[in-house]
Amino acid sequence: MTLMEKAKNGEVNEIMKTVAEQEGLGVEKIRKRLAEGTIVIPYNQNHKNLSPRGIGKGLTTKINANFGTSEGCSDINNELKKLKVAIENGADAVMDLSTGSKINETRKAIINNSTVPVGTVPIYQAAVDTKSEGKAIVDITADDIFDVIKEQAEEGVDFITVHSGITKEVIKSLQKEGRVSDIVSRGGSFLTGWMIHNDRENPLYEYYDRLLEIAYEYDLTLSLGDGMRPGCLADATDRAQIHELMVLGELVDRAREANVQVLVEGPGHVPFDQIETNMKLEKDMCNNAPFYVLGPLVTDIAPGYDHIVAAIGGTKAATSGADFLCYVTPAEHLGLPSVEDVKEGIVASKIAAHAADIANGNKSAMNRNIEMAKARKQLDWNKQVELALDSEKAKNSREILNDEDEEACTMCGQYCALKIANTALNVK
Amino acid sequence: MTLMEKAKNGEVNEIMKTVAEQEGLGVEKIRKRLAEGTIVIPYNQNHKNLSPRGIGKGLTTKINANFGTSEGCSDINNELKKLKVAIENGADAVMDLSTGSKINETRKAIINNSTVPVGTVPIYQAAVDTKSEGKAIVDITADDIFDVIKEQAEEGVDFITVHSGITKEVIKSLQKEGRVSDIVSRGGSFLTGWMIHNDRENPLYEYYDRLLEIAYEYDLTLSLGDGMRPGCLADATDRAQIHELMVLGELVDRAREANVQVLVEGPGHVPFDQIETNMKLEKDMCNNAPFYVLGPLVTDIAPGYDHIVAAIGGTKAATSGADFLCYVTPAEHLGLPSVEDVKEGIVASKIAAHAADIANGNKSAMNRNIEMAKARKQLDWNKQVELALDSEKAKNSREILNDEDEEACTMCGQYCALKIANTALNVK
Repeated sequence: MTLMEKAKNGEVNEIMKTVAEQEGLGVEKIRKRLAEGTIVIPYNQNHKNLSPRGIGKGLTTKINANFGTSEGCSDINNELKKLKVAIENGADAVMDLSTGSKINETRKAIINNSTVPVGTVPIYQAAVDTKSEGKAIVDITADDIFDVIKEQAEEGVDFITVHSGITKEVIKSLQKEGRVSDIVSRGGSFLTGWMIHNDRENPLYEYYDRLLEIAYEYDLTLSLGDGMRPGCLADATDRAQIHELMVLGELVDRAREANVQVLVEGPGHVPFDQIETNMKLEKDMCNNAPFYVLGPLVTDIAPGYDHIVAAIGGTKAATSGADFLCYVTPAEHLGLPSVEDVKEGIVASKIAAHAADIANGNKSAMNRNIEMAKARKQLDWNKQVELALDSEKAKNSREILNDEDEEACTMCGQYCALKIANTALNVK
Repeated sequence: MTLMEKAKNGEVNEIMKTVAEQEGLGVEKIRKRLAEGTIVIPYNQNHKNLSPRGIGKGLTTKINANFGTSEGCSDINNELKKLKVAIENGADAVMDLSTGSKINETRKAIINNSTVPVGTVPIYQAAVDTKSEGKAIVDITADDIFDVIKEQAEEGVDFITVHSGITKEVIKSLQKEGRVSDIVSRGGSFLTGWMIHNDRENPLYEYYDRLLEIAYEYDLTLSLGDGMRPGCLADATDRAQIHELMVLGELVDRAREANVQVLVEGPGHVPFDQIETNMKLEKDMCNNAPFYVLGPLVTDIAPGYDHIVAAIGGTKAATSGADFLCYVTPAEHLGLPSVEDVKEGIVASKIAAHAADIANGNKSAMNRNIEMAKARKQLDWNKQVELALDSEKAKNSREILNDEDEEACTMCGQYCALKIANTALNVK
């Protein structure tokens, strides 16, 4: 039985209890929301040493780190370093997006070493396998795709991105309206290319029941991909994107009926003023399925700083309904991220998630801020470092910028407002 | 005559024309808003080589970089390097917050070398001068303060922060309600300490007419400081803060009557969900005076990353009414920023301002994003680098992460979505 099925039957298990404890909520709330599908707990029994995470309604905002090899960058150890730094800095999930050589070894190593849920995009492996046989992506068969999905589920993958919402009709919407950037989703472009070349419906849509059967067998959580996500601000919230979202809503219903956990992926590049609308649209059209957004990025012109651009959009998204933020690194739009880029990306995403949790009324998030404010007032630098999101960086910066015996800091020195106000107000 | 007086008289001059051109607006709009006080153009005739900037209603969001010496860090050349990097990366104004030795030389050097408006907080110099005479801050006289203001105006300072809104009654509000962080504004703490020790009203409030006379003489723009700004999320939007804002609203009216340009400073540390309320409160209570915010910072626990924290709050602020963002650097809460910190701070602030301009409907901001999207689709890397907010960083990252002859990038290589979608959709 899947977690969702158990929840529907009124059963509570250790996984639900762990999530309830993490969130400071009663387990009955977790069970109820799992049953109705407003939260998911990606958890494949074949993934050993996994600490569960709940994603969705009323839970803290979760963050995901993507990495994985690429042609020419296929060093498994380097990817394991990225995994380590992502988890150490607060990633709640990771996705292996490898398309390099040793794709299977890389994925297995990541599953074996990850204590957080692991996601993949199986169409990548199907494409790499097909290419390695000297064929083109358009030659992939439906069996190829489902065989890969089954293989990865067997290995312990917890959630998979499937771009099941790209239908022939959705592609027509794209072509009729036109776009500046067309398609920027890799999986989306593979499937669209395949569908146009073969003049066939998307196998992940046409054989969605077959997908649900595999997902049910392994309690594999489906992350319904947004192949039509806007790749630039100008394309945001257009008819192709919303048409696909409508299809995803229908697929959410079918997954829930089949007792398969499901979440929905969202944009992408979105102007700041359109983010709230996008979040509310997903909640309405997809019956409050957990929403997993990539960014959103609120400008296209800041390559090198897209972790900041995504943190801006992510905070707005997570205060308007998004449940799960996919990080963006400073390497976005430029190349494959380094270990350092992964760290910068995950910290920026954590800031966005935390700021949103505070705004959403999470008391434990707010309490940590109050503790920090008290430590600042007391000029207690050790405590400030301890409470910092990135203690190592706070400690190093403090040491670089100040002498060891500096009571205040070099910003104000003897003119420290906190010291002066402390004295003045305590006289009274 | 001040710019505001000229505008009220229906006069248009070169300064107004330059601002109108920068903004792509008719000069009559600029004149009208200057006259009503909804925009300011800080411009001291004694500041040579100054390129004007308009701040306020319907104009693009402007950004400010703070720097200046401190005890133990009094290298003028280093401050001039910060000035250079700030202007090169898009600062619309800078503030010299020096409290180190050579305070006068530093300020003069910054005015001489700055092509953007220069602001100061004159109470700092009054405090440093008094301390250098072996006296305490509480020994400063009203004459000391006004002498410093006149001296700086004569030198060419374009705008000054004056914490005129801290009255005895405002301090009572603070003491009655209590706070976690009390006062974190340096000028605010000096004046509060002075007022409590001397049991006197704030000279910048009591003798506000004297301040207006000096400001009128030099067309010095007043930036009404928020001495009661919250220094942590828990203190945000409390009674002391809003009481001071009410007083600032009254002082805005009096400045406008005296033909003195005036803007209002705002928080500070504010939870994301309270930012919009804060912006609307200022616009309502201060008759749409331009709003100059410090951040706002949406969490207290990210020292080392406060430029990101401020970019999140700044975007929300600037889409809800804020006109002018004071940058925050990664060194905030840790020490005096380095040249590199200044650059990181200004770029993050520029991203926030730009994202807000797009959301606010600015067409020229959006057009640059469309150009970038087109360059991406064409895999035109030179054009992408050229259009990037920080071209140097984009170019360097591209080179580090990719081989020279890479057509796509190492993120996807031959699986580049743009390439595949381009081919697929063009077949049709």
